[in-house]
Amino acid sequence: MERKPVVAIIGASKCSKKLRDMAAEAGRYVAEQGGVVVCGGLGGIMEGAARGAHEAGGTTIGILPSSEKEDANEFIEFVIPTGFGEARNVMVVRAADAVIAFPGKYGTLSEMALALRDKKPVISISAWKLGDEIIQMDDPKEAAAKALEMIKEAK
Amino acid sequence: MERKPVVAIIGASKCSKKLRDMAAEAGRYVAEQGGVVVCGGLGGIMEGAARGAHEAGGTTIGILPSSEKEDANEFIEFVIPTGFGEARNVMVVRAADAVIAFPGKYGTLSEMALALRDKKPVISISAWKLGDEIIQMDDPKEAAAKALEMIKEAK
Amino acid sequence: MERKPVVAIIGASKCSKKLRDMAAEAGRYVAEQGGVVVCGGLGGIMEGAARGAHEAGGTTIGILPSSEKEDANEFIEFVIPTGFGEARNVMVVRAADAVIAFPGKYGTLSEMALALRDKKPVISISAWKLGDEIIQMDDPKEAAAKALEMIKEAK
Amino acid sequence: MERKPVVAIIGASKCSKKLRDMAAEAGRYVAEQGGVVVCGGLGGIMEGAARGAHEAGGTTIGILPSSEKEDANEFIEFVIPTGFGEARNVMVVRAADAVIAFPGKYGTLSEMALALRDKKPVISISAWKLGDEIIQMDDPKEAAAKALEMIKEAK
Repeated sequence: MERKPVVAIIGASKCSKKLRDMAAEAGRYVAEQGGVVVCGGLGGIMEGAARGAHEAGGTTIGILPSSEKEDANEFIEFVIPTGFGEARNVMVVRAADAVIAFPGKYGTLSEMALALRDKKPVISISAWKLGDEIIQMDDPKEAAAKALEMIKEAK
Repeated sequence: MERKPVVAIIGASKCSKKLRDMAAEAGRYVAEQGGVVVCGGLGGIMEGAARGAHEAGGTTIGILPSSEKEDANEFIEFVIPTGFGEARNVMVVRAADAVIAFPGKYGTLSEMALALRDKKPVISISAWKLGDEIIQMDDPKEAAAKALEMIKEAK
Repeated sequence: MERKPVVAIIGASKCSKKLRDMAAEAGRYVAEQGGVVVCGGLGGIMEGAARGAHEAGGTTIGILPSSEKEDANEFIEFVIPTGFGEARNVMVVRAADAVIAFPGKYGTLSEMALALRDKKPVISISAWKLGDEIIQMDDPKEAAAKALEMIKEAK
Repeated sequence: MERKPVVAIIGASKCSKKLRDMAAEAGRYVAEQGGVVVCGGLGGIMEGAARGAHEAGGTTIGILPSSEKEDANEFIEFVIPTGFGEARNVMVVRAADAVIAFPGKYGTLSEMALALRDKKPVISISAWKLGDEIIQMDDPKEAAAKALEMIKEAK
């Protein structure tokens, strides 16, 4: 089966309304272009990203740290409750073909590190600056377009 | 969001054509009734179940032991590559609201055990007999109907 | 380095005093013979096994479901807190060269299944009867002797 | 039981002889002071650290990405083979009371991030500079002393 491109949108579980809306914009664009949004399934950036994608009619997958489906935000269509705590970050990254990172703490940093380790494209919107391998961008829509473009090129 | 019922269909990664077709029948029924099929993403029972659901227009999720999306069978729409080996069984079970078990070896047994531990309905079609908590059935379509019915009741 | 044989002693986290003492007897014998006891680190059978081994001057390793070292019982010398919930069962089994299973529920069953899958010797003392591959024994000391003997033979 | 302090020594699986010897010096000091060295169990920094601790008569624990004990380096006394790939980094960090980081790639970075997330002391010897929470040091012996001192203070 030809599978849709999958973009992980990662970042803090608590954030400002402005950042949440930016994440929603990225999620919406991914969905509009036929992509799937995967995230950690909780609040903040994850909720914004899922909301944007869901409202645009796209598919959202949330990979939870807990083992309880109820912990997913309301915009997650398919819930994967792991019970693995932070180790679920590995799976968020692995389920994705590219990663868009919004500001977040050490959980976000570990996800970025794991994505770079797996040689996946990582686009940072004001997130951790770790070196040249990470593409720095400001606009969430452009970041989403870049992620989808890089996935296409990698095929 | 009102989420669709999710049925895990588990069993051996290598099996007879007859069993694979039975798994397909179960998968098809789940999809026809608006359910999602989750499985381990590989061959045998997993492939049969995914094929049945996919051909009926349903959603299929494959949670892989490896970290490579390429390892998923061709009927998996959404691939979750874990890199966790057999420990991914925990996640197959957790992603589901009910489990249908076809014959399988110790991997299948461990999944059944984990499902019972999480107090999820487990329906066995000629799989391990572990006690009264497991519902024994012969017909894959009836097993699928039973699984969906039990999910509905549990809500 | 020549490593010591490692025996996993598994079973319920809550059990009768009699069973706990039997687990202690098995743990003690493993330690007296120069072996290491690995377990899930919690109460019941796990605590009994660790106590027996520790009091005999042996090494005890506890692989916890939680991420908190404080959750280990007092007889665990080396604590591995995973935060992986029941998925830590996979690691208890993998850390061992042989498994002695005391009565337990579905968590114990999943551990036995995983050990059989990894083709490790499994000795059952009144635990789940799963087929001929599992050695049924009554006496904990004899079970421990059998486990150590089978590890020696496998080398 | 009063448990010994546990120091994780992390870094690249391939490195210069100079760095490996520095890791050995850190491991040796931890062991001489009665501490336990935990690491990822493979080569490079991990092997150096384990060698230093083992030669000083200390305990070494290796938490492997693979499920095969044979993959551990020869200085690991207790092997925990996880089969979880890079997700085992979470466990290396969780098993430790403090972390000493030598230069490494993204796997090392993710371990540092996870340690900071768990609020454990992280001492960096020429490793990733992530902010003020990480203590920068040059001398491996002093780093080991600092790690042990911070563990003592935290109790």
